[in-house]
Amino acid sequence: MRRRQETPGLVPGVLAEYGALTRAAVERYLPAGEPRRYLYDLVTDYPRRGGKAMRPSLCLATACAFGARPEEALFAAALIELLHNATLIHDDIEDESEMRRGRPVLHHLHGVPLALNAGNSLALLSLRPLLEGQGQLGPGLLLRILKETVRTTRELAEGQALELGWRRDNVVGLGDADYFEMVLKKTGWLGMIFPTLAGALVGTRDPQLPLAPFVRFGFFFGAAFQIRDDVLNLVADGRYGKERDGDLWEGKRTLILIHLLGQAAPAERERIAAFLGQPRAARREADVRWLRRQIDRYGSLDYALGMAGGLAGAARHEYSQIYGGLNDGRDKRFVLELITWSLLRDA
Amino acid sequence: MRRRQETPGLVPGVLAEYGALTRAAVERYLPAGEPRRYLYDLVTDYPRRGGKAMRPSLCLATACAFGARPEEALFAAALIELLHNATLIHDDIEDESEMRRGRPVLHHLHGVPLALNAGNSLALLSLRPLLEGQGQLGPGLLLRILKETVRTTRELAEGQALELGWRRDNVVGLGDADYFEMVLKKTGWLGMIFPTLAGALVGTRDPQLPLAPFVRFGFFFGAAFQIRDDVLNLVADGRYGKERDGDLWEGKRTLILIHLLGQAAPAERERIAAFLGQPRAARREADVRWLRRQIDRYGSLDYALGMAGGLAGAARHEYSQIYGGLNDGRDKRFVLELITWSLLRDA
Repeated sequence: MRRRQETPGLVPGVLAEYGALTRAAVERYLPAGEPRRYLYDLVTDYPRRGGKAMRPSLCLATACAFGARPEEALFAAALIELLHNATLIHDDIEDESEMRRGRPVLHHLHGVPLALNAGNSLALLSLRPLLEGQGQLGPGLLLRILKETVRTTRELAEGQALELGWRRDNVVGLGDADYFEMVLKKTGWLGMIFPTLAGALVGTRDPQLPLAPFVRFGFFFGAAFQIRDDVLNLVADGRYGKERDGDLWEGKRTLILIHLLGQAAPAERERIAAFLGQPRAARREADVRWLRRQIDRYGSLDYALGMAGGLAGAARHEYSQIYGGLNDGRDKRFVLELITWSLLRDA
Repeated sequence: MRRRQETPGLVPGVLAEYGALTRAAVERYLPAGEPRRYLYDLVTDYPRRGGKAMRPSLCLATACAFGARPEEALFAAALIELLHNATLIHDDIEDESEMRRGRPVLHHLHGVPLALNAGNSLALLSLRPLLEGQGQLGPGLLLRILKETVRTTRELAEGQALELGWRRDNVVGLGDADYFEMVLKKTGWLGMIFPTLAGALVGTRDPQLPLAPFVRFGFFFGAAFQIRDDVLNLVADGRYGKERDGDLWEGKRTLILIHLLGQAAPAERERIAAFLGQPRAARREADVRWLRRQIDRYGSLDYALGMAGGLAGAARHEYSQIYGGLNDGRDKRFVLELITWSLLRDA
């Protein structure tokens, strides 16, 4: 077990400030009407459990770094947070997860049918902040953000399809490039690319702003962030909010597991493949513990952390391409520090 | 078993013509890229199984009745058909259905996780026809149609939540009004209200067109249509495409079942409630047959069909409010004949 590391600097304060702004904005879009018991109690559950608010903070900080006020980008922050929570509901069903932000997953509380339906409701609700009262954006900017939202959900579904398909067919011959493609779509797009692009669109008011620099930045940052997340899943203490070793129980194709499969001796590799080929319910605690020990034995955690460090360096380079020419200030520095913070965080 | 009834008139020809137009348009929006096996093969499955194309035909005919050409409303017809197919994927999971358009449901072919994810992908894909190349609509009309799309998905989720919640909690004390509220949201909104409103918006080019007349028309028409669908489920021959008596196996709260529960003697009512309280897998063929006999004994089918006839009459009245002042022509007559056709159809 690793010890808690210090994460000094701007990040915790800005996350707290922008997180509070976002939560208040999200509340305004959560429906209060009927049917409450079968729908809106479920729809509002995950958004109210709270989270790090990293995605909306990245959006608000980028908008401000490009010269806007936080309130001008708040609709985009709310959109991002609502969409993120909608994907969590469906991902938890698809991944057969058990815990989310320290509580049982929604479909364990209400059953799969009602949880699935609530996820749909929340996903479409995420468009409300964009469609209601954003007249001052102008139609060009509004439609561009809408198109990027649709693009983001397309990437999300593609990334999730890859990960689920690999598990369903028990694919064990994956390389790092497969992992990075999946993570770009599943983590990078909604986590980093869309928030920074949306923030920059609000800040610049330029509907023609090119997408490519944000894809590069978000790819490196997102991959570094996700690898840290995968590591935390295996070393986390109580503050993590998901089940410890959940990724192993779920058979998730993390960079760590891909490294282990590439390094393990043939007999071990076969045993891992047999473990991964079982339905979740058939997996045994002893096998999960054995798998966890092989990860340490083959240095797969260290490999993954080393890779994350390199990716963070590339993300800092891409950061300078987007933010380098802007006036210095708290928001600009926050984005840079967030890259380092995401590698050091312990929850 | 009822015999096939003749459905003469305009309807089959117009459905064939507008259905072919819509299918060709839908094809243009279905993705051809990767990941094919884990995503886009699934996304394209239901849309290519074909259907009656009633919803998109209603949209195209309404647009033409209001003076547009079919091509001008084709984006809306494609949107409706894609969204309809997306909801079918998720509904089949939530309802534990087995057959769809004569073939096994998607989640039986690929598993729940990949099917759920494909449904998400298809739902967001449905916005593509609206967002790509509809510049000639103008931003006001485009945003209005987008808002009505989001409203429609909200109503769909509310209707589905009611129906699923009633089943999960084995609610047996429902009245006709509960059924009509659920059907307005679940069937009327995407099936009739949105298609006719979208068609009229394209035809009139008036972003301020009031919603209310379309809600009234779609409510009566949708309820009549859904009751016929519920009846067909219990009397259908091979052309129906879903499993015979599937609604009884699924424990669906149809008007027929609600009538039976209201009419049955206390001991029978108790037996029905016990049957409905079981998980689907525990239900036995003999019980389904017994339930089916009670429906005949208490005249619940005839009650439902009588109600459908009255609703269709009300729909014809509301039709005259919307279409009455328009120039006579094939498209205007088609919408009127569709109401009658939907009561006589046998598939």
